[in-house]
Amino acid sequence: MSRQKFILDKLARTFQIRNKLLRQSLAECLGTLILVMFGCGACAQLVLSGGSHGRFMTVNFAFGFGATLGILVCGQVSGGHLNPAVTFALCLLGRERWRKFPMYFLFQTIGGFFGAAIIFGMYYDALWDFPESFNMNVTNPTAGIFSTYPGQHLSLLNGFFDQFIGTAALIVCILAIVDPYNNPIPQGLEAFTVGFVVLVIGLSMGFNSGYAVNPARDLGPRIFTAMAGWGMEVFTARQGWFLIPIFAPFLGAIFGTIIYQLMVGFHVEGEVRDKREKMEEQNVKLTNNTKEIN
Amino acid sequence: MSRQKFILDKLARTFQIRNKLLRQSLAECLGTLILVMFGCGACAQLVLSGGSHGRFMTVNFAFGFGATLGILVCGQVSGGHLNPAVTFALCLLGRERWRKFPMYFLFQTIGGFFGAAIIFGMYYDALWDFPESFNMNVTNPTAGIFSTYPGQHLSLLNGFFDQFIGTAALIVCILAIVDPYNNPIPQGLEAFTVGFVVLVIGLSMGFNSGYAVNPARDLGPRIFTAMAGWGMEVFTARQGWFLIPIFAPFLGAIFGTIIYQLMVGFHVEGEVRDKREKMEEQNVKLTNNTKEIN
Amino acid sequence: MSRQKFILDKLARTFQIRNKLLRQSLAECLGTLILVMFGCGACAQLVLSGGSHGRFMTVNFAFGFGATLGILVCGQVSGGHLNPAVTFALCLLGRERWRKFPMYFLFQTIGGFFGAAIIFGMYYDALWDFPESFNMNVTNPTAGIFSTYPGQHLSLLNGFFDQFIGTAALIVCILAIVDPYNNPIPQGLEAFTVGFVVLVIGLSMGFNSGYAVNPARDLGPRIFTAMAGWGMEVFTARQGWFLIPIFAPFLGAIFGTIIYQLMVGFHVEGEVRDKREKMEEQNVKLTNNTKEIN
Amino acid sequence: MSRQKFILDKLARTFQIRNKLLRQSLAECLGTLILVMFGCGACAQLVLSGGSHGRFMTVNFAFGFGATLGILVCGQVSGGHLNPAVTFALCLLGRERWRKFPMYFLFQTIGGFFGAAIIFGMYYDALWDFPESFNMNVTNPTAGIFSTYPGQHLSLLNGFFDQFIGTAALIVCILAIVDPYNNPIPQGLEAFTVGFVVLVIGLSMGFNSGYAVNPARDLGPRIFTAMAGWGMEVFTARQGWFLIPIFAPFLGAIFGTIIYQLMVGFHVEGEVRDKREKMEEQNVKLTNNTKEIN
Repeated sequence: MSRQKFILDKLARTFQIRNKLLRQSLAECLGTLILVMFGCGACAQLVLSGGSHGRFMTVNFAFGFGATLGILVCGQVSGGHLNPAVTFALCLLGRERWRKFPMYFLFQTIGGFFGAAIIFGMYYDALWDFPESFNMNVTNPTAGIFSTYPGQHLSLLNGFFDQFIGTAALIVCILAIVDPYNNPIPQGLEAFTVGFVVLVIGLSMGFNSGYAVNPARDLGPRIFTAMAGWGMEVFTARQGWFLIPIFAPFLGAIFGTIIYQLMVGFHVEGEVRDKREKMEEQNVKLTNNTKEIN
Repeated sequence: MSRQKFILDKLARTFQIRNKLLRQSLAECLGTLILVMFGCGACAQLVLSGGSHGRFMTVNFAFGFGATLGILVCGQVSGGHLNPAVTFALCLLGRERWRKFPMYFLFQTIGGFFGAAIIFGMYYDALWDFPESFNMNVTNPTAGIFSTYPGQHLSLLNGFFDQFIGTAALIVCILAIVDPYNNPIPQGLEAFTVGFVVLVIGLSMGFNSGYAVNPARDLGPRIFTAMAGWGMEVFTARQGWFLIPIFAPFLGAIFGTIIYQLMVGFHVEGEVRDKREKMEEQNVKLTNNTKEIN
Repeated sequence: MSRQKFILDKLARTFQIRNKLLRQSLAECLGTLILVMFGCGACAQLVLSGGSHGRFMTVNFAFGFGATLGILVCGQVSGGHLNPAVTFALCLLGRERWRKFPMYFLFQTIGGFFGAAIIFGMYYDALWDFPESFNMNVTNPTAGIFSTYPGQHLSLLNGFFDQFIGTAALIVCILAIVDPYNNPIPQGLEAFTVGFVVLVIGLSMGFNSGYAVNPARDLGPRIFTAMAGWGMEVFTARQGWFLIPIFAPFLGAIFGTIIYQLMVGFHVEGEVRDKREKMEEQNVKLTNNTKEIN
Repeated sequence: MSRQKFILDKLARTFQIRNKLLRQSLAECLGTLILVMFGCGACAQLVLSGGSHGRFMTVNFAFGFGATLGILVCGQVSGGHLNPAVTFALCLLGRERWRKFPMYFLFQTIGGFFGAAIIFGMYYDALWDFPESFNMNVTNPTAGIFSTYPGQHLSLLNGFFDQFIGTAALIVCILAIVDPYNNPIPQGLEAFTVGFVVLVIGLSMGFNSGYAVNPARDLGPRIFTAMAGWGMEVFTARQGWFLIPIFAPFLGAIFGTIIYQLMVGFHVEGEVRDKREKMEEQNVKLTNNTKEIN
């Protein structure tokens, strides 16, 4: 073994984390960091360039393919949820254990925080150079780079419905993609497909308030902006809007899970179960027959 | 079995629908809902934002990838047609039974209706905030969010040809993708490929009247707009335009099926049949020889 | 066998073409028709809408994914060249027989002709409604919908180099994709990859003269425009420009083949041959040894 | 064997290069040439057309899918790095030998040089036709077609951080894609995924200085511009900016490697090692037991 391999092996043994949940949470943290870094980076590019280096569509592409890349980086370790609402839906269906939920939520939010921080550092000069001379507060368009704010036309009720439906649509599509009884795509392409889901949601549901549909993606960067100088108004603005992208997605996740299960999930699952039970029945009969013969 | 699994299992057994055709129709309904929700959502985003949050291309992407996602959600159960013209073409070729056709048509239209309803709810505030103060009628650009209307330059005859050719192009490509004798793509990528077909049709055939090429996608949302306040003019506008995206696609489907079969389909099928018949002939000879020997 | 199946089977037997080359040429014709229909359709949408329903990028996407769809439709039958320059390069390398070349060229051109005709019919009203009141001649921007014309800045020499390099780039990428000794992508994804090649060429090499890089794609629609009313000036315009997208691509195909073979192709092929020859040598030795022993 | 096959075989034997490292370097050269040709071509199309034939997003797509195509062309031979920072990161992890690094760096830079030269030739007339009458120097926007220059708002320090983070993000994603212990995607799709990484970096990190994140992609074309008439100011402009896209990427590669290994890589590697060691232990015990028994 060469000297380099020896050092690498030693490093690997030293830094290996043996607690599985921590390892998974760390992976979720990196995945969400990548999602938020690329997504908010595209927002920053759009806002700070005044439209010359980006459009709303480029933000949609960046969040979509950013989700793909985030899932590719951490998916083998943690499942690649990147979104507490997704973790929540999978817990609801018994596919993930409930004790994962708070840890994932926490680390996804931390990932969002650091993703925003990286973009803040990367575009630091550009933020200071921004026309409205960086009077850091929530009325500055730069606040919208990091976390979502509702459009002027949007009431709180409609905003709630917006996040509720957006997350429900996300969950219906994701459940179809990962449903073990409904395998629509080749193994290994889930990340790309989820990226398309996020892209399409951005293309069609982004005008009201910027399609957070993800409590961690919105809360992490919002905490960062509060600390980085935009101030506590990021929480108080628009009658406490910040609560909606935290709570509406979970209700949307419940609704999306119900819709998918009622219209597709229970039936594909049932078909498999029916076949299995029929075979078991036949086996029992066969055994009984054999017994009788003997 | 944990308490949660027990409850989930019970729910699954309670809500499982055992009638296969109903189950399939329900899946088609959800698939078409997803297609229309994402597609019309992107239209809404384009119209209501005045172009700042979308362009015609983003609508093309949303309909294309919305078709992909709709097919992924329901394809394993129902085949993922999302379009009565596709069901019709597959019935023509004997690949689906004719009795599926009316049920699929009905449920696809219902899916389109609810897809439009969701977008109406999601952008309710934005619709009221729209410059032309929401004088809900068919001259308002907001009507075009949900169902298609012909451009000012378009005569009914040219409009008919537009829908006829658009659907024929769709059907030629879809038949190539799903032809059992012509397997051009890996299993599981059909949904993505159909998404590209819908995208490309939008990029090249969308200027005349908005490329419905799908009776359910157009009729469902149109019924919704009639009920939601735009009024019965959605049916009477432009000398009864609404009939064209209902009937022209079926004629286009017939034409597309003929073209594909004449230029590719019959030959790839024939090649397989020729081989099979040759082998059978040899088998017969072999058997005869064996008989003679014996 | 049901009545419908019986009729379908009879139709299949009646219309099956048993001459393989004719069957392949017919498939190439349909594939090229699809490429040109979608590509020129997107041009028409861009020009006729005055930019509201398309941009240069949407044309790039339409030609790229149109190539993908064209290949998917005919690839299993004919290889899916859609371009005489591609057929030419594969003949050069001995992968296709030379006698295919004139037939493919002819039928690809016919496909291009009818693809243009379909778009002409589909946008007939819009063409008459076009601002410059359809004084059908070559100075009208509508001529550029169907076949390529050089930009004002472009000399014939630079135009020749443009088509030469564009085709060489296309051929290098396509040879890498279909090289039997260099299998970079999973079976069945060739069509998508070629679509990306055409897309990227459009994004980076389209400003000079609209990236024909395909004699059939340019000549077929040009003949159509000459007949449909734009007149013989489509051939005489710009000192006989039309000859350049016919001849430069073949020279570019030769150059691209040489570059790919010198820098990658000969080496991957050689590696395989070296291994085979080594094994054969060992087999010979083994045989000799065995002989000696005996 | 036909005459043509005979000639081709002879050519193949004559031009086959038997030195593996040289063969690999040559392949890297062609791959990087393709990346730079398509990427800088899209820049040229954007700048020279004044925005009518391109936008910043089309440049992002061209660099992204240009990377995909470059990797497809050379990946089987050389690994398809196209970027000395990627080669560096793989050397760091012991996956490539260090002696490859200088050769790859050199040939990647040469590839970048010729890629720029091809675009210069292809758009020669358009460059002379450019509004600012081609006073070839670094203040001319045409200089930015080939190599990167920082925006007016950007300090050298922030520019360094920009290249550092951009490359780190690239390396984290690429390591995840090629990590042998973390196989997130089907074999053969790596090139497409890397293309998406490059695309997303362009969408979100391109505003500051044009996301070189690749010493060869920036240095090769810069040397070309110095020789082609823009003069030595391409090196001296903005206090020697050209050094930053050369050195910052290597530091970013180190940082990206550390982050990926600490947060994901060491753990997936460790899991595999733990399993292997456990099995070996059991084997040892088994052997011991067998010995004792005997």
